[in-house]
Amino acid sequence: MSEKNAGEHVVMMDLEPIDLMIGGKKRRFDIADPELPDWIDDAAFSSGGYPHEDKLKRNTYEDLLEALQGELIKLHAHLQATGGRLVVLFEGRDAAGKGGTISRFRHNLNPREARIVALSKPTETEQGQWYFQRYAEHLPTDGEIVLFDRSWYNRAVVEPVMGFCTEAEYEAFLDAVNPFEKLLTDDGIHLFKIWLNIGREMQLERFHDRVHNPLKYWKFSSIDLKGIGLWDRYTDYRNRMFAATHTDHAPWTVIRSNDKRRARVEAIRLVLSSIDYKGRDASVIGEADAQIVKNAGDFLAAKL
Amino acid sequence: MSEKNAGEHVVMMDLEPIDLMIGGKKRRFDIADPELPDWIDDAAFSSGGYPHEDKLKRNTYEDLLEALQGELIKLHAHLQATGGRLVVLFEGRDAAGKGGTISRFRHNLNPREARIVALSKPTETEQGQWYFQRYAEHLPTDGEIVLFDRSWYNRAVVEPVMGFCTEAEYEAFLDAVNPFEKLLTDDGIHLFKIWLNIGREMQLERFHDRVHNPLKYWKFSSIDLKGIGLWDRYTDYRNRMFAATHTDHAPWTVIRSNDKRRARVEAIRLVLSSIDYKGRDASVIGEADAQIVKNAGDFLAAKL
Amino acid sequence: MSEKNAGEHVVMMDLEPIDLMIGGKKRRFDIADPELPDWIDDAAFSSGGYPHEDKLKRNTYEDLLEALQGELIKLHAHLQATGGRLVVLFEGRDAAGKGGTISRFRHNLNPREARIVALSKPTETEQGQWYFQRYAEHLPTDGEIVLFDRSWYNRAVVEPVMGFCTEAEYEAFLDAVNPFEKLLTDDGIHLFKIWLNIGREMQLERFHDRVHNPLKYWKFSSIDLKGIGLWDRYTDYRNRMFAATHTDHAPWTVIRSNDKRRARVEAIRLVLSSIDYKGRDASVIGEADAQIVKNAGDFLAAKL
Amino acid sequence: MSEKNAGEHVVMMDLEPIDLMIGGKKRRFDIADPELPDWIDDAAFSSGGYPHEDKLKRNTYEDLLEALQGELIKLHAHLQATGGRLVVLFEGRDAAGKGGTISRFRHNLNPREARIVALSKPTETEQGQWYFQRYAEHLPTDGEIVLFDRSWYNRAVVEPVMGFCTEAEYEAFLDAVNPFEKLLTDDGIHLFKIWLNIGREMQLERFHDRVHNPLKYWKFSSIDLKGIGLWDRYTDYRNRMFAATHTDHAPWTVIRSNDKRRARVEAIRLVLSSIDYKGRDASVIGEADAQIVKNAGDFLAAKL
Ligand SMILES: Nc1ncnc2c1ncn2[C@@H]1O[C@H](COP(=O)(O)OP(=O)(O)O)[C@@H](O)[C@H]1O
Ligand SMILES: Nc1ncnc2c1ncn2[C@@H]1O[C@H](COP(=O)(O)OP(=O)(O)O)[C@@H](O)[C@H]1O
Ligand SMILES: Nc1ncnc2c1ncn2[C@@H]1O[C@H](COP(=O)(O)OP(=O)(O)O)[C@@H](O)[C@H]1O
Ligand SMILES: Nc1ncnc2c1ncn2[C@@H]1O[C@H](COP(=O)(O)O)[C@@H](O)[C@H]1O
Repeated sequence: MSEKNAGEHVVMMDLEPIDLMIGGKKRRFDIADPELPDWIDDAAFSSGGYPHEDKLKRNTYEDLLEALQGELIKLHAHLQATGGRLVVLFEGRDAAGKGGTISRFRHNLNPREARIVALSKPTETEQGQWYFQRYAEHLPTDGEIVLFDRSWYNRAVVEPVMGFCTEAEYEAFLDAVNPFEKLLTDDGIHLFKIWLNIGREMQLERFHDRVHNPLKYWKFSSIDLKGIGLWDRYTDYRNRMFAATHTDHAPWTVIRSNDKRRARVEAIRLVLSSIDYKGRDASVIGEADAQIVKNAGDFLAAKL
Repeated sequence: MSEKNAGEHVVMMDLEPIDLMIGGKKRRFDIADPELPDWIDDAAFSSGGYPHEDKLKRNTYEDLLEALQGELIKLHAHLQATGGRLVVLFEGRDAAGKGGTISRFRHNLNPREARIVALSKPTETEQGQWYFQRYAEHLPTDGEIVLFDRSWYNRAVVEPVMGFCTEAEYEAFLDAVNPFEKLLTDDGIHLFKIWLNIGREMQLERFHDRVHNPLKYWKFSSIDLKGIGLWDRYTDYRNRMFAATHTDHAPWTVIRSNDKRRARVEAIRLVLSSIDYKGRDASVIGEADAQIVKNAGDFLAAKL
Repeated sequence: MSEKNAGEHVVMMDLEPIDLMIGGKKRRFDIADPELPDWIDDAAFSSGGYPHEDKLKRNTYEDLLEALQGELIKLHAHLQATGGRLVVLFEGRDAAGKGGTISRFRHNLNPREARIVALSKPTETEQGQWYFQRYAEHLPTDGEIVLFDRSWYNRAVVEPVMGFCTEAEYEAFLDAVNPFEKLLTDDGIHLFKIWLNIGREMQLERFHDRVHNPLKYWKFSSIDLKGIGLWDRYTDYRNRMFAATHTDHAPWTVIRSNDKRRARVEAIRLVLSSIDYKGRDASVIGEADAQIVKNAGDFLAAKL
Repeated sequence: MSEKNAGEHVVMMDLEPIDLMIGGKKRRFDIADPELPDWIDDAAFSSGGYPHEDKLKRNTYEDLLEALQGELIKLHAHLQATGGRLVVLFEGRDAAGKGGTISRFRHNLNPREARIVALSKPTETEQGQWYFQRYAEHLPTDGEIVLFDRSWYNRAVVEPVMGFCTEAEYEAFLDAVNPFEKLLTDDGIHLFKIWLNIGREMQLERFHDRVHNPLKYWKFSSIDLKGIGLWDRYTDYRNRMFAATHTDHAPWTVIRSNDKRRARVEAIRLVLSSIDYKGRDASVIGEADAQIVKNAGDFLAAKL
């Protein structure tokens, strides 16, 4: 049996009710109960201050997505013609929508030249190596697009939150990551760092769905479970990451993702608006929705 | 620029009208003309003797697919629990629907443990190696599912048809492939070989669509173009492949794929009906549609 | 610390005296004692019925080796010019002299094109794969020579002797290995299988030397230690391996190796005498010393 | 046939006499003539101002080397016990003795944990990647020693000298290499950069030997041949490299290598004297021979 997931799945997990403090209220969340509590259901979409009332309409979304994917194809053709390289890394809490966004991003691109990289936890050999080594192996060659589903930023958030790295390793990472990314961008790689930001109740709703929807339960891991009570620690590490690694050469973009559709659209739009390519149609790309897309500097400033 | 696709795409291709002989009629096909000719449009769905009048209804399809994907998840969980390994290889002419079928097959599975392998044309180093070497590298470990989008059978059809291998290499392949697969199945790997069978006019319609749909034009390669006039050669090599490599330990299943929806459903169903797994629900899996699914032995026999 | 050798070295090993039965005599061997016992010292060189009285003279050896290496260079040039591929796999008990023979074989060849492959024990991922998968990855491309220091035959001797595989895995290996090798030789790979055969007291002397020579102690593993008492089991599995896998397409050659010099010369000579190449000088190659070189068929027959 | 060496070897090379300007004298060097000219033979050992009259005596050398290798084994055991990592990269003109030095360095170490990395020229895919990517892949894990036979510094000397990179790539490399190495040393890797410095006539003598010694002719490449007339360009780029990349965190050590024996001894000694390890015996290690070992700062200063 695969070592990676053994024993991590819901069937084998102990799903005890969890006591939480949310918005000043004490809440007991029994994720094993098939019924989603009202206090989650009611608050999910607007959680974390999500500004929209409703999801983007299905038809609007599909048309927009298809149009943007058409632009992506032109962008990719341009990268291939000019030897350009593109890296987009997706970070965010569990259930923020990384996988789904990446899959729409890649959907109409040639899978041989637009690769998804989602590394498992490091093997013992990898653990002994230079921290960036196993990621560096997957960087693109000329004409390639690489979409990282999680990335070296594991060491900035999930690892310290979960105790998978030492404090010293965490600090060393924060010292190393900016120069590392500078090497890549100086080498000519287009690098985008996207944080998908989900509200607390929305995360709970999606976890609940994973547990009870047989098509999704493999997505629910013991790390997700453990993360439920660690919301504030996550927040704290996320903010420290933004403060330390939002640089001119490799800025972070925060995209609110309670509405997955809008988030997917904005992620693609971000890349399209930042690179010039042959045949680019600005009217198709449109403008970012400033209510849900922020650079990490403004995002942090708004928190104060 | 990536070496793999340089100069292979429609923008750079010479799209001259082609003279074809189809069903005893001389036809001129001008793929560059945005208008699809009636003789293709009218015949596409029923081409190659497709037995159904219409595509499976969207809703029926989506419900069925989701139910079958639910079973796949159980199958995968079972493989993980028992250390089983599954290989499904998809072959068929260009535009037969390999990529789309594979992507639905994989859709709800854990991407880290259900991998798609779609190799580019061999590098010079690979060309010098044991023919099966570069494929062997991607075989599954315990608990994994590997879906091959094209496979070692390149050497049985596309390579000899296109002149990418010598006659001697072709013959050597036919001698080697059965013992090679026997090693894998004796080692306990579940191996399925699926040929998606498309009708001639349907292939032309899909090629036409690739050329004129900007979201798809990257799929259209010079090999597709060249293949248009080589239909009968393809047929001949396909049949020789079936005759030589449809074995007890690794049989071929032919699935007619003019209706992509039915083909996708049948591919998943085939695997589900052939492996026993925990929680298997035979009523969900249902029965293969014998009109569009045949083992290669019966398929060949029916040709006579 | 590297997982591979942790805890396997002499510094951490318990070197208790071992009671052995050798040639009908009970012997106690205290490997920790720096003094090599006379019963080993006296018998080592002639152990196992070694026919020569003395080592090959140093000068004779060096001249011969250099001349043969010159021929190897011509052979390699020929392989490169014609796209040939050569695999030589070296097996034998611990301390039989595999590493040293391989290093002389490779000494004057271009290290980029004449590679040594010495795999560590399989990782968990590799353990779940097709048994031959991790070896297949290292097979040569055109013009390459690959020297295996141990090989897939681990499963024929050391694994069953040490209990690293199940009886069923052992049997499955014996069924699979001949067809596997047939695939390689049919593909045009030159395949040599050499068993270096060491006498019992000579092995003890070399182990003793490893323990007490700081330059060599890393070579002494807990597996060597454990193997000391398992001599007859090794013999038995070796013979079963010969009986099962000495084939026309991939025969075994047994080379007695109490005298390392003669063994190195004979290993190179074997390959040179079996392949035709441009500029081959038969007078340099000379004749095998039939007293120490036997094909496995004759070797087994002589045992009866 | 292997792409890497095709057409690079002496058999296929045009060995015309070359006109050189050496020490103010015009010289014609006919490398194809089996007779080595006196002006080379006489000057070789002392070329480039080599301070010693004779090679180190064979016995002295062998004893010293063995003693130092004994220390290396202790160093390696210490790295394994503490999870240390060691990288030593060897640079120098062709025939400076990199390969031989590396092979003595590694000779008594466990080959599975002390690896030699000698990369071929980059493939097309590699050429499109981040420059350091293909090197990063081979960096050591815990307990490993990696010896680079040539390294990323190809782009500092051989590539610009031979025209294998653009001026812009060269400049970009000089900007990137210090931060890159800083990442490695900050990560805890012990990094040594050794330049083996050979005199001009000594290089000619060794080239001549390669051409006429069948055991070595594979070592002689068209790049060596072309390099003969580019001595001063090499010198210039070497000096610019020292000026730009001799840093506190990753200094260069220059070792004169007309006497290969002394050079090998000094390379090992350098590493042993710079790392603390368990059981270290300073009296065995001894002192560097300041006449032939200099850090690159002093080396450059002495040139002025
Ligand atoms: N020169 C070649 N030698 C061998 N195989 C080739 C060569 N060129 C293309 N192929 C293979 O032929 C197959 C069909 O090519 P193509 O129609 O372009 O790709 P696909 O249908 O997979 O998108 C692919 O598997 C490709 O790798
Ligand atoms: N647990 C194991 N499972 C399978 N093979 C193993 C295991 N442990 C050691 N081996 C293999 O047994 C062989 C003998 O081990 P050892 O004597 O330590 O190495 P060597 O003789 O190659 O220096 C090696 O090929 C090693 O990979
Ligand atoms: N076209 C090229 N582009 C970049 N590097 C090259 C190219 N050709 C050769 N090299 C590199 O130049 C270096 C010197 O080549 P050569 O003298 O043939 O090899 P070596 O001295 O390592 O035996 C090698 O590292 C080789 O990989
Ligand atoms: N023991 C571990 N050490 C380091 N990273 C881990 C470990 N376990 C899980 N992770 C990583 O944590 C992230 C979240 O895990 P998951 O929610 O299971 O996808 C993934 O990137 C994992 O690779």
